[in-house]
Amino acid sequence: MTSDHFIANSECQIPNSVAPWRSPLARALHLNRSLPYARYLQLATVRPDGRPANRTVVFRGFLDHSDRLKFVSDTRSQKFVQLEAQPWAEACWYFPKTREQFRITGTLKAIASDYADSRLQQARSSSWQELSDSARLQFAWAHPGEPRAAADAFNPQAPSAEVPLPHFCLLLLKPVQVDRLELCGDPQNRTIYTWVEGDRSWSTQAVNP
Amino acid sequence: MTSDHFIANSECQIPNSVAPWRSPLARALHLNRSLPYARYLQLATVRPDGRPANRTVVFRGFLDHSDRLKFVSDTRSQKFVQLEAQPWAEACWYFPKTREQFRITGTLKAIASDYADSRLQQARSSSWQELSDSARLQFAWAHPGEPRAAADAFNPQAPSAEVPLPHFCLLLLKPVQVDRLELCGDPQNRTIYTWVEGDRSWSTQAVNP
Repeated sequence: MTSDHFIANSECQIPNSVAPWRSPLARALHLNRSLPYARYLQLATVRPDGRPANRTVVFRGFLDHSDRLKFVSDTRSQKFVQLEAQPWAEACWYFPKTREQFRITGTLKAIASDYADSRLQQARSSSWQELSDSARLQFAWAHPGEPRAAADAFNPQAPSAEVPLPHFCLLLLKPVQVDRLELCGDPQNRTIYTWVEGDRSWSTQAVNP
Repeated sequence: MTSDHFIANSECQIPNSVAPWRSPLARALHLNRSLPYARYLQLATVRPDGRPANRTVVFRGFLDHSDRLKFVSDTRSQKFVQLEAQPWAEACWYFPKTREQFRITGTLKAIASDYADSRLQQARSSSWQELSDSARLQFAWAHPGEPRAAADAFNPQAPSAEVPLPHFCLLLLKPVQVDRLELCGDPQNRTIYTWVEGDRSWSTQAVNP
């Protein structure tokens, strides 16, 4: 399977051009790089009862040859259950130094241990391998959200650095709209980028902040 | 109407004791006070189509004698429309210096110009008066989210500092659950505070991070 084959398959559709929001987002990441938490963003999903959920996640880069944002998660966590029922998500990403916000709307896909796509399983393994030792160790901790376990449940043997634990999963957010707000402008600037499926390209519109 | 009358009415129910999450939240605000953006948090709501929405808002303190968090908004914004259909919201508040996260789940109420409660109208006016001149001016800008207007739509006459513009509204988030995660612990600590309506008090449970 060639690289070209990979980016042309259904998992990684090729847009007609580079997404126009990638450049301002890359710029924001660069200008805020001295703040480790500039890679933290808040990911909203919807619970089975229709109420929203919202938590901080760490941006783990883009899936190769695509505009999909990578996060990691635990299949024992609530968000894994939530996105099975409602795959839509909205990330809100605020960059303190440049005072700008990106709201990224899209669908979220979980690549768990049983996901039947060998390329995405490879991406899942790579994400596991790229974690720090301490981040990997957390996946061997006691079941998240359950009543606090005894101390030894948080002192597990270090898991393999190569093979992900079964409940480790990769999350992929496929954007269909990006709303960028620059608070530093006078007046502020706001731009909405929308994926147009029929054209297989992004439209860009300046809107009022 | 006395102060006691006010806090005993249906808008501001008195809990049996101070909410146990107020003290750690106050501590986080204090320890992060050198970062202006430590008062920014991400507020998730649900759109009429069932998809989540998520945006950064500024914490404007608590409504007097209550545990309700105050934010300000514009009735021309999407979140105002969203919460009419689905009042549930979840705020995600990450504090960079202390490396802790508060997820605050509750119902969101909009106090717009036609809200029929004189005390909450007073709170709305106070929130308007507490804004900076530049923040007030933004409420006189062109309709948010519409195609970018000409420059003079962003150069309005300064509105009254006393009387709110009609589309200014106060948002009140009434928490029913607070999920606090401390990343600095080894292992991390996570505590869930849940409002128990029958007891009119908060329960506190340590859970696995």
